[in-house]
Amino acid sequence: MRVMGIDPGLRNMGWGIIDVAGSRLSHVANGICHSAGDVLAERLLSLHAQLSAIIGRYGPDAAAVEQTFVNKDAVATLKLGQARGVALLVPAQAGLAVGEYAPNAVKKTVVGVGHAAKVQVDHMVRLQLPGVEIAGADAADALAIAICHAFHLQSAGRLDSALRRAGA
Amino acid sequence: MRVMGIDPGLRNMGWGIIDVAGSRLSHVANGICHSAGDVLAERLLSLHAQLSAIIGRYGPDAAAVEQTFVNKDAVATLKLGQARGVALLVPAQAGLAVGEYAPNAVKKTVVGVGHAAKVQVDHMVRLQLPGVEIAGADAADALAIAICHAFHLQSAGRLDSALRRAGA
Repeated sequence: MRVMGIDPGLRNMGWGIIDVAGSRLSHVANGICHSAGDVLAERLLSLHAQLSAIIGRYGPDAAAVEQTFVNKDAVATLKLGQARGVALLVPAQAGLAVGEYAPNAVKKTVVGVGHAAKVQVDHMVRLQLPGVEIAGADAADALAIAICHAFHLQSAGRLDSALRRAGA
Repeated sequence: MRVMGIDPGLRNMGWGIIDVAGSRLSHVANGICHSAGDVLAERLLSLHAQLSAIIGRYGPDAAAVEQTFVNKDAVATLKLGQARGVALLVPAQAGLAVGEYAPNAVKKTVVGVGHAAKVQVDHMVRLQLPGVEIAGADAADALAIAICHAFHLQSAGRLDSALRRAGA
């Protein structure tokens, strides 16, 4: 199974794709979509086109987007919301179910504690995906989201299998 | 020229379309796109499909989206941002330039004062578009945004013509 993680942002949208075979993870690709300029609609259009091309190229089977931390800066929250709308829309348009995880849930899954530092997340991503070259902090976060989603999908799958074996 | 206005919202997204011929405005259509359910990506997908169908059906030449009022409720701001991302994206995908107006700018253009009550905006929309049947408050706001955008496009057009006549 191929899983995509997206770390939404208007200026920098991180993305990462991994393959999952049993408990083995392997890196496929990662990067950062950029948008710049004064016209918001054109920036969202550019992000939509970039994300659509990535999904078209790598064909993930599942996707997850980070649940944005809602801070006290309402203008920043609105900007992030607009970018996040596109990040959720593109995989849904490709027919994928889109998971959502809070930043603390991602850290808890990948590092083991909810309040891990960024450097720890980066370290665990590199440990889980040997040899990976990471395009930047937003791409590392996106790979962590993909790893988190893969783990949760597998747990759910194991539960389904157990229930089927139990005849439930 | 055909102008579309959009009043963004996750649950209720108002839209309105008018035709502009010189200083004469006429109503084309208006309505409200609804989305409901627990899965955010599917709600955004539904809004995207509804807005895309409306643009495909009526073929506007220009569009404008209300600049969301950023209030103190960060969760609501994030939700609105996600819906607004889709509202800006869809006309941009159709190749339209997308204008943005703050609520006070819309009221100032349509009613003459920036702090007009909703009932005044509704009244002026009905006055400018005789015989219009309005689908609801969000659709009335969307028609007001379309009227505002039409006015500003015409003013810009007159300025362009004046500059051309002046040889600037």
